[in-house]
This record gives sequence, structure tokens and C-alpha cells, in this order.
Amino acid sequence: MENRPLPRPDAAAYDAARARQNQLTKPPGSLGVLEDIACRFAAWQGRVKPDAPNPAITVFAADHGVAADGVSAFPQAVTAEMVKNFAAGGAAICVLARANGARLEVVDAGVAHPLDPALPIVHARVAAGSANLAREAALSEEQLEASLEVGAAAARRAVDAGARLLVAGDMGIGNTTPSAALICAFTGHGVDAVVGRGTGVDDAGLARKRDAVARGLARVAGRALTPRQTLAELGGLEIAAIAGFYLEGARRGVPSLVDGFIATAAALAACRIEPLLADWLLASHVSQETGHALAIAALGLSPLLDLRLRLGEGSGAALCLPLIAQAIALHNEMATFAEAGVSGAA
Amino acid sequence: MENRPLPRPDAAAYDAARARQNQLTKPPGSLGVLEDIACRFAAWQGRVKPDAPNPAITVFAADHGVAADGVSAFPQAVTAEMVKNFAAGGAAICVLARANGARLEVVDAGVAHPLDPALPIVHARVAAGSANLAREAALSEEQLEASLEVGAAAARRAVDAGARLLVAGDMGIGNTTPSAALICAFTGHGVDAVVGRGTGVDDAGLARKRDAVARGLARVAGRALTPRQTLAELGGLEIAAIAGFYLEGARRGVPSLVDGFIATAAALAACRIEPLLADWLLASHVSQETGHALAIAALGLSPLLDLRLRLGEGSGAALCLPLIAQAIALHNEMATFAEAGVSGAA
Repeated sequence: MENRPLPRPDAAAYDAARARQNQLTKPPGSLGVLEDIACRFAAWQGRVKPDAPNPAITVFAADHGVAADGVSAFPQAVTAEMVKNFAAGGAAICVLARANGARLEVVDAGVAHPLDPALPIVHARVAAGSANLAREAALSEEQLEASLEVGAAAARRAVDAGARLLVAGDMGIGNTTPSAALICAFTGHGVDAVVGRGTGVDDAGLARKRDAVARGLARVAGRALTPRQTLAELGGLEIAAIAGFYLEGARRGVPSLVDGFIATAAALAACRIEPLLADWLLASHVSQETGHALAIAALGLSPLLDLRLRLGEGSGAALCLPLIAQAIALHNEMATFAEAGVSGAA
Repeated sequence: MENRPLPRPDAAAYDAARARQNQLTKPPGSLGVLEDIACRFAAWQGRVKPDAPNPAITVFAADHGVAADGVSAFPQAVTAEMVKNFAAGGAAICVLARANGARLEVVDAGVAHPLDPALPIVHARVAAGSANLAREAALSEEQLEASLEVGAAAARRAVDAGARLLVAGDMGIGNTTPSAALICAFTGHGVDAVVGRGTGVDDAGLARKRDAVARGLARVAGRALTPRQTLAELGGLEIAAIAGFYLEGARRGVPSLVDGFIATAAALAACRIEPLLADWLLASHVSQETGHALAIAALGLSPLLDLRLRLGEGSGAALCLPLIAQAIALHNEMATFAEAGVSGAA
């Protein structure tokens, strides 16, 4: 992955867009957070009236060695089965991509079970899943760099196809466990505040998850790790790919809408690698997963939705896409007081 | 307005839809509140896979005698000016109706300033605004019944045009004042907990609003009023029209998505007139207006969005329409575990 610095959003375009908001036929501020969203797109695109976002969704799939410790309610085979469901158009994210007219790409970043090369996805398998983070580094240094590049390449394809907004989704049985470990490591919050039930483990499974995360954190405690090294020790192949995806999108001047618990863990890692990334991210929703709200706050973001989702795949971000499209349409299409001949406040 | 009883949603269709949700390729419950929304549409339409909502938006405009007491930041002339802006397509609700492919109708239920009969809206002016609720009944009994019928007729037009979901919007300078009075009267909450700044009055204006609401409430205190009489004493022409719109929609088997403070006050009045209406309402958003959350809770509803909006016009409800469309699309289009060959929870 390239390491050239990230651009900065255009502050003058932000201010011009804010001035426009205050002239539209509504009480100033009455569109709430939608006003700021429209102005942020103005800043990202460097124009007062930003183009429609034309979103692209990429779902990264991989398996996790820690699944062997019984941290998920579902068997590991489901990762590969769900990739086939994505390819067939039957998963939630497929429905939402269609509903939003969004480009959808599915990337095998490291599914354990080998997938048929004829499956219409991007075959970019870095390894047959990660190692068990409770016992050893989840990824080698080479696997980390390869995963970041898998994500970066996906971002380049999306941007080259015309996307002005990126969404990353995840699929990987067990992946709330590495995500929780990363959130603990990067925020300092404790295991009990961060580890949740994922797809729905029972009390015994939750205890196993907490133990796995605690063992992973104990392995790295006291070591002076860089953010990249922390991501390799505790992360996963699809999580690193999502981090690379966000970073490369921002490098190309295209923001990302962050999905749920796994995507937020990836965003945290990416922001620790490159702090300027935070200016290129929007939070979509706060999920039911324990610790997600803490992770979003650590990014300095505020979620748009709280619908008690806990699905992943990019689904919560996809659900937000119409809100963003509507925020931009309001900004671009509403009449000003002068245009409409409407009196201002007395 | 007719008084025949409201139908009941189809409980068997709800249960069948819930069973379908539990077979879709996702952890059970992981689509959060969207699962219940899809099941409620199944119950409203009496089929496991409900049709897309094909929403219709009707904006009711009227003026308020209480505006003379200085309760708004905007001059009364803005009501008529904004109706012209609606007709010209420049207002927020116009942009949102276009974005959602929704039918939009604007109804003059009682704008003080006479509107050009050639203006392409529905001319159904019951009176040149309401009387000042701080001093006397806002509406006569005849005006109340006429306003309820203006709303009912609009609901019939929308349903006849194929709408499976109704949205009512409001326009009326000063109309957060009667709405606050109704919410106080129907919920028992105090003036300070309910009266807010509306479009943005200053501290002196807020004090005038509180005083006007308190005087209106004092006028009716201790009188044994029916819900209809309370609505006439403290309401407004567009507020009563919205109540009639919700009631007639439900009578025709079509639910409504309730917008902000004014629409919620109308929904409260309508539910006190006909308690079965509550089964036909969805809350869209909780606004920044003081007391809105209390009013939504009094309806037994939970809002989908909290975007710090305070615009009215139906805008908050319109912003929710894609969430509802996506909830139904997910319900209808996702593959089941059996169809996709995906393993269930271990």
C-alpha cells in the first residue's frame, strides 16, 4: 500500500456550503445533522454543490483462527456459504445494494474453505484464514501488508468506477472477537465493556470470547507495538483489508461511510496508522454489539442511525445511503429565500 | 367525516412474517427494528410479503390566530409564501418527495392570506386562519368537522391513487403553539416540559409562547371536554386536517408515518378520538422541539430517526421512507437459509 499523505478536505468549500444552507427556505439549522453532512461532501469534493455520492459497497470475507475457541454461534463453514449467498444476490447487503443502485463487489481476502474460482467475486485470498490471536499473532507482517493492499486495490476499483462514497462490509465467522481485541487495544477500554454476543453466542460462548480477547491482549501487553503491528497481532485478513480500503479511498479524495462493529474496529486501526483519515469518515449506525458506541466515540464520530442492528456485511451503512443522498439533494435543490420570495425571520 | 370503526391489523399475517424473518440468512433479530416494521406492513396489508409502500405525502397549510401574540420568529405572511414555494417545488418536502418518488399534494386548509385560485394546490380553505387559542376556542365545532373532512378527503385521494403508506406534513406560522397546547392537554405534561422554540424564537418569544399555551390551558381547565372539543379549543385547521387524514387512512386500511411535533400533536388528538388508530401509526423521527419525545411516548411509539430536525412539512417522515422501503425489500428479497444452503446457528 502507498504511504503518501492524505489530502485535507476543502475548508473554503465547507464554509461556502454552510453559507448556502443558511439561505435555503427553512429555519437555519432546522435540517439538523443533514446540513453538516451536505457541507462535508462539499468539502470532500471541493465544490459548493457536491455531486450525488454514487456509492460503492465492497464486502471483504475472511476466516479467523480464533473461531476454533468457540467464540461464535455459527460454524466456520458459514463464511464460505455466505460468500456464495452474496454472489447469488440473496444476502441482506445484496438487497440493499440493489435498493440504493450501488455497485457491489465481494472480495475473498482469506476464507478458510477454498472457493470455486468460477464464483463471480474478486479472488484475493491472502491466507486460509488468520491464526488464533489468543495464542499468536493473527497475521504475519507480510499477510498484513497484503491484506491492506487487497483493500486498497478494491478502493481504487470503486473510485475508478466513479464512486464518491465508499462502504466496506465484512463477512467472517468469529470476527467480532478480533474486532473487540483491536478496540480494547486502541482505546484502552476493558474487555467487559467491549466484548459482546456477536451473532448471538450464549453465556458460555460469551465467556470464551472474553477469555480469548483477554489472552490476546495479555500477549501484546507491555510491548511497544506500532498501530500496524497491533493490527497484525489482534486483527484479521478482512479487517486489515477494510483498513486499507478506507485509507486508499481517502488518499484518492473519497470518503467512507463506516458500518458496524467490525468496520469500526478497522477504522480505528486505520486512523491510528494515519490520523488524518478521521476527516474522511462518516459513522453510519450504532449497533447492538457491546462496545460499538465506545469505538465510534473514539473515532470522534456520531452515528446517524440506531436501529438495534447487529448484522455486519455493510448493511447498516447501506441503510444510511438514502439519508446521505437526501441530505445532498436538499442542499442542492432547495430554493433560497431570495429565489422563492419567502420572508426571513422577523 | 365517517365514524365507522377502524379495522384491526391482521395478526396472523404478522406472525407469518415474523416466522419468515427468522428463516432469512442473518442471525435472528439482527435487522433490529426493521424486522418489526416489515412484519407490521405484513399485518396492515394482510400478506406475508407486503407490497412496497408507494408513499403519498400531503402537506396541510393554515394560519393561527395566536400568531398575533408574537409566538413565532417568522411573520404570518410566510405561511402563504411557503405554500407558493411548495407549489414551485423549492421547499424541503418537494425535494424529498422527488427523491422518494412519492406523490405530493399541498392543501390550503386555512391560510389567512387568500391564495391565487390558479395555484396548483388543493383549495379547501375552511377559514382565514384559526382564532387565538389563548383567548377563545381556536375552531368552532363546524370548522373542526370541516377540517377533519378536508384531511379525510385527502387521505381518500392518496389511497385511491395507490398509496400503501401516508405522510402528513404541516405549514403554518405559529403552529408549534397549538401543538404544544394539545400535547399538554392530552398528556398532562406541563407547559415548561412541552413548549419549545419552534422555528427559533428568542427568550422573550419563548416566554410569550409559554404564556399563550398556559392561558389556553387555563381556559379549558376543569371543563369536561371530549377529545374533539379539546382539539377545537386548542388546535388549528391544518392540525385537525392531519388528524382526519390519519383516521381516514386507517379506516381504509392504510397506515401513516407520523412526522414531527405538529403531526404528533395531531396524531395524539386523533388517537384520543379513536384509540384503535394507534395500531396504524409509525413514528418517524424525534425532533429537537421540546416535548416531542414526550408526545411520541404518549402514543406508545418509538422514533426511527434522531437527526436533530425541526422543520416540519413532513420532512422527517419523508426522510424515513427509504428505511421503510429497505425494511420491506430485505423482508421480501433476502434468501432463506434453506434457499441459500447456509448453515444455521450451531
